[in-house]
Amino acid sequence: MADPADPSRGSSLPKGTKPSTGLAYSDAGVDIDAGNEAVKRIARLVSRTKRPEQLGDLGGFAGMFALPSGKKNPVLVSCADGVGTKLLVAIAMDRHDTVGIDLVAMNVNDLVVTGADPMFVLDYVACAKVDPATIESIVSGIAEGCVQSSAALLGGETAELPGMYAPGHYDLAAFAVGVVERDETLGPARVREGDVVLGLGSSGLHSNGYSLARKALLSEAFGGLAFTDPLPTDPTVSVGDALLVPTTIYVPHLAAARSVGALHAAAHITGGGLIENPPRALPDTLAMELDLGDVSAPPILQAISDIGVTRDEMLRTFNCGVGMLLVVDPDGVADMEAAVAAVGLTPTKLGTVVARRGDAQVHLAP
Amino acid sequence: MADPADPSRGSSLPKGTKPSTGLAYSDAGVDIDAGNEAVKRIARLVSRTKRPEQLGDLGGFAGMFALPSGKKNPVLVSCADGVGTKLLVAIAMDRHDTVGIDLVAMNVNDLVVTGADPMFVLDYVACAKVDPATIESIVSGIAEGCVQSSAALLGGETAELPGMYAPGHYDLAAFAVGVVERDETLGPARVREGDVVLGLGSSGLHSNGYSLARKALLSEAFGGLAFTDPLPTDPTVSVGDALLVPTTIYVPHLAAARSVGALHAAAHITGGGLIENPPRALPDTLAMELDLGDVSAPPILQAISDIGVTRDEMLRTFNCGVGMLLVVDPDGVADMEAAVAAVGLTPTKLGTVVARRGDAQVHLAP
Repeated sequence: MADPADPSRGSSLPKGTKPSTGLAYSDAGVDIDAGNEAVKRIARLVSRTKRPEQLGDLGGFAGMFALPSGKKNPVLVSCADGVGTKLLVAIAMDRHDTVGIDLVAMNVNDLVVTGADPMFVLDYVACAKVDPATIESIVSGIAEGCVQSSAALLGGETAELPGMYAPGHYDLAAFAVGVVERDETLGPARVREGDVVLGLGSSGLHSNGYSLARKALLSEAFGGLAFTDPLPTDPTVSVGDALLVPTTIYVPHLAAARSVGALHAAAHITGGGLIENPPRALPDTLAMELDLGDVSAPPILQAISDIGVTRDEMLRTFNCGVGMLLVVDPDGVADMEAAVAAVGLTPTKLGTVVARRGDAQVHLAP
Repeated sequence: MADPADPSRGSSLPKGTKPSTGLAYSDAGVDIDAGNEAVKRIARLVSRTKRPEQLGDLGGFAGMFALPSGKKNPVLVSCADGVGTKLLVAIAMDRHDTVGIDLVAMNVNDLVVTGADPMFVLDYVACAKVDPATIESIVSGIAEGCVQSSAALLGGETAELPGMYAPGHYDLAAFAVGVVERDETLGPARVREGDVVLGLGSSGLHSNGYSLARKALLSEAFGGLAFTDPLPTDPTVSVGDALLVPTTIYVPHLAAARSVGALHAAAHITGGGLIENPPRALPDTLAMELDLGDVSAPPILQAISDIGVTRDEMLRTFNCGVGMLLVVDPDGVADMEAAVAAVGLTPTKLGTVVARRGDAQVHLAP
């Protein structure tokens, strides 16, 4: 907590090192030295994400961040999310340096669809017993996700909870805060009939549907594969590696898309897949007609589909190759495609916004 | 997510109800109906915490909150924390309606020591299997904590993670965001030699030291008590009830203290107790001389001490009856005592700020 690089990093571990007699905290299964070592390693990683707005000298209980100037009516945007059972894959494979990227991604991708720029992230890491190397590996991914998001890792908590987690298990949660000028907010109210829907490709499953994906690929009754087996649809990678590919962080792409001035709304394709997320970017009166024919989906999706998950279940569980939808004024489509491609992802034209007829707000070409 | 009372409440459960054939998400151990039921119950609770700054109509991916107007140089203050192994007491006693108060308290008490007013809180609830009644009970506590803190419950995530948590277990994390005018920030830079240190009483153990407390009170080798046994130092309450008393939320008291204009700094007495937290409110050149003689500590602290935890270990693990320290200009002490007493807690004079001599920044009268 005294480290200026990380003024608000908490820990449920007392930091004392004085010897004491009688019943002590260390007797209760809480390892003080491991906690101190983890905090030290984290501080180095956190300094990578430092932003000039941070006011680290003002107190050690909470993170402080001066609101970026120049906003007339600033609206704060905030979300909370975890990684879900993708963590069980990381734990089984003993590879902990990428799930932190997923953790940040799941938050900032929800945040940028409102038109906001991320400012900072805080994390919560809970485990049965602090292993400093594992914690360092996890937080290195969180820091990497923050760097990719241009967000400061402003604070966090590392909790050692004996009796709450199985040995070697951990859970992660994070929370992101961004800011948007009130009259530049994206969303359903801006969307018009005739708007064009562009899709941004996903890197893999991102962080949704892992309970189903693991059952389909790994259980004896279905795929019967091991993590080390080659992925049937792409034998150059293992099943485990394909499952652990980190979630794409769309912060630079949304910033590029907004710069064109034709972006009306966006939808992060998270839990609920392509059935339940697109309506979140639409007013009740409109719908989307989408055709996934030109989408080049990561091979792991085909592998899961081949095992016997129906198209309907695929569509409502996974991103099916599209991690983010952009709803765009038709006059701005060419400029937007160029702007987003310039930061690394070429959008795919998926369809258009139409008047709603009946219940469904998403119509997918067969 | 469609509920206007809770626009950004996420869930790792897909919301679909359509029947499907083949391998489906529900086959993978994720209960969609229970998730929907929990989300519905949560929405009712969340509406209690609504603040006028919330912009719930602008999109469903993240919570949106207009920055309160009138700040010239607004600084955002944010922290993350959990409840720790106090959760194991709640789980063992099957009483889940108070740990949410602890969760909010641990965050907002860290936040208010900077001089900030809480604006909003987001929560993360993770469990093996969603039981709607348990989730409702947990979130009712979180909402109560938010009401006590004048904070909106702006969003959150309920994650069902089969295979990550033992049956009936859950973990909680929360994040709080507040705002302070930059030149009204409290902290070490304002503290002067001769400042008076006031203590605000704690309600119990708050949310720190539970691994040690449980071992001392419950294990056969030490106290050998059961949750249902009377507390030896106060037979009118059970051990379990005494352990579950919710953490005091000091938001109203800090607001009252700040209104006097003589508050220089404050210290939340959290993990590390009265040894490690007071220095966080001090510059390197100053120390505190404290005397706990007038503190009326909750009986559970004496019960733990009686079992054989040393004074040194007590001081660096528990709040020892003082949940919050206020560092006050000597000219303002009488007014501050009156202002804080008017919102329900009479401060205890604990000592003064002195020049630092040697390593220690806290000197406790024997």
